[in-house]
Amino acid sequence: MAEQFIVTPWEVRGNIDYDKLIKDFGTEKIDGKLLERLKKHTGELHHFLRRGIYFSHRDFNWILDKFDKGEAFHLYTGRGPSGKVHVGHLTPWMFTKWLQDKFDTELWFQMTDDEKFLIKNKSLEEMNKNSYENALDVIAMGFKPNKTHIFSDIDYIKSQYKIALKVAKKTTISTVKAIFGFKDSSNIGIAFFPAIQTVPCFLPSEIYGKNIPVLIPASIDQDNYWRMARDVAEKLGYYKPAQIHGKFLPGLQGMTEDGKMSSSEEMTCVFTTDTPEMVEKKIMKFAFSGGRETIEEHRKKGGNPDVDVSYQWLTFFEEDDKKLKKIHDDYKSGSLLTGELKQILIKKLNEFLKEHQKKREKAKDKIDKFMLRD
Amino acid sequence: MAEQFIVTPWEVRGNIDYDKLIKDFGTEKIDGKLLERLKKHTGELHHFLRRGIYFSHRDFNWILDKFDKGEAFHLYTGRGPSGKVHVGHLTPWMFTKWLQDKFDTELWFQMTDDEKFLIKNKSLEEMNKNSYENALDVIAMGFKPNKTHIFSDIDYIKSQYKIALKVAKKTTISTVKAIFGFKDSSNIGIAFFPAIQTVPCFLPSEIYGKNIPVLIPASIDQDNYWRMARDVAEKLGYYKPAQIHGKFLPGLQGMTEDGKMSSSEEMTCVFTTDTPEMVEKKIMKFAFSGGRETIEEHRKKGGNPDVDVSYQWLTFFEEDDKKLKKIHDDYKSGSLLTGELKQILIKKLNEFLKEHQKKREKAKDKIDKFMLRD
Repeated sequence: MAEQFIVTPWEVRGNIDYDKLIKDFGTEKIDGKLLERLKKHTGELHHFLRRGIYFSHRDFNWILDKFDKGEAFHLYTGRGPSGKVHVGHLTPWMFTKWLQDKFDTELWFQMTDDEKFLIKNKSLEEMNKNSYENALDVIAMGFKPNKTHIFSDIDYIKSQYKIALKVAKKTTISTVKAIFGFKDSSNIGIAFFPAIQTVPCFLPSEIYGKNIPVLIPASIDQDNYWRMARDVAEKLGYYKPAQIHGKFLPGLQGMTEDGKMSSSEEMTCVFTTDTPEMVEKKIMKFAFSGGRETIEEHRKKGGNPDVDVSYQWLTFFEEDDKKLKKIHDDYKSGSLLTGELKQILIKKLNEFLKEHQKKREKAKDKIDKFMLRD
Repeated sequence: MAEQFIVTPWEVRGNIDYDKLIKDFGTEKIDGKLLERLKKHTGELHHFLRRGIYFSHRDFNWILDKFDKGEAFHLYTGRGPSGKVHVGHLTPWMFTKWLQDKFDTELWFQMTDDEKFLIKNKSLEEMNKNSYENALDVIAMGFKPNKTHIFSDIDYIKSQYKIALKVAKKTTISTVKAIFGFKDSSNIGIAFFPAIQTVPCFLPSEIYGKNIPVLIPASIDQDNYWRMARDVAEKLGYYKPAQIHGKFLPGLQGMTEDGKMSSSEEMTCVFTTDTPEMVEKKIMKFAFSGGRETIEEHRKKGGNPDVDVSYQWLTFFEEDDKKLKKIHDDYKSGSLLTGELKQILIKKLNEFLKEHQKKREKAKDKIDKFMLRD
């Protein structure tokens, strides 16, 4: 198996070795001891934790220490609204919602429309519009309206600017070149942007006038920002933000080609607004199969669920461990064919999306309750 | 005489050769033809124009062309509110007020509290507070309340951010390094800041939804920003901003030591809030003299008004050409002694400041009419 893979805030590609990422990024593995500790608070464990989909963290024990001493933490996550939301974007939000429910925390959700304008060949107006379109998907996840603050950077810049300036004053061009790989040919907006992305790590403390621990559930590709935020935090007298990292939902074409689902390729991902027919067509046509060449061979030798994208997607979307195990074993033994496995996923995903689309529609009436604007 | 001098947005030093500046910055000299043309609009010429204190421009003829065709221009100037306002800061504002009166234009006045925080060892809160303190001096100049918009960058960032992002996207780190001398060790905030300072060149066009010519009356040390603004203007479809450049009021210690009055040195400048006693003490003690060593020598050989700071200040503050000429001739002939010349300036300046301080006090009740906030 190829060992080459890339994980940066702008590119995730290849067959990702998550153990190597833990080593490279200098984070900690989520181990049995931490899961036991968490279980005492949450009663049950989210299936993303039971299955190692959330696999890495930084200072999560410290977050729980603080919580045990009565210092409630806040959650911070976000989205770069370059286009439509696909189901791969939803998985960290599902986990974030679970954390909000279990710990009854506030959530700060940053839409980085400024960043997407600065790095894409798209208009500012379109990126800003996407912030509100994408927010419907966030709201549809079921976050608590009175404890969830979603904001477009462009429309909430005044509340963020002072902290961004304080962060920027402590951050040199050298630093952002080293951390993010910027060059002298990079534009001055994207050079400044890391200061904006760190703001919500410290915003709750500013708003409440006391130091508040912040936990960031996010994919590990955003880690560069949080390392920068942690460096600056000390200099500005804030707590360092803690992180908990999830694996990427693989693209339909499979993990060996593209570890993360890319929304720029219409036919490699499932958008939250796709019709049942589109979902079926995409999965039947593109989902990388771990099955054998012929039905006879599959029946005899069995399929490989570890590389089968439909099975991998079910590890995210099928919450029932027993059902998932049966699918796994049946596929491995050969009694379940690839076409049948795909149909299981299609049914599951379409059930999920039917509900999601209903909630997304209702979210249109609730958007003002969730969105912050200056 | 030493030919070395420095003129940058952060440092103005040495005996400034203004003709060389015109060549170096690639601007145009304000010549008799332009003055004649201007006189047709204004009736009289401001004494700063009569005396060559406003000496250079870029596209001022174009501004008048547009005006003649019925396209009114707007004015843009500003201040970096690092501390108290001194009388050297007032001179461009006097000229700006004259332009507003003569052409009945709107004025956009940017307080760059963000910039000052980023480059000074001062708190953001203090710089922001200075914006409002300094605004009292601006308002005291007598600008029209319904046509004058003063704003702190920090408190008006939301209205400026979209344009700043558009400018930033078109400006590389290389460009700001070349124009402003930034290094990799510069902070990412100051690297982004030139985008903010260019915003008011284009803000009137955005607000009114049509291209509006903008004229910037400012000292020539800010020219780097406007050259950048002019480069970007074309790419974004705005008019290039025009400029008109004034000379610096020399520091009390004279032009050979410090061409621009520096407010960071308490005893080299006169603040707008100084008492008559402080003004007298400062001028008597510190104003560089063009007089002779002894009274006898002075009576015989006469003084040198060209290097005498008190006389230079009178070229800014004594509007009456005849009175000024008499002072000049009397000093040059030796009939007017340095102490007497200083007393003329002290009287003139204290009369001016008495009025200014009254208006500044009244400005406290009007500040909300002038200040924009998001």
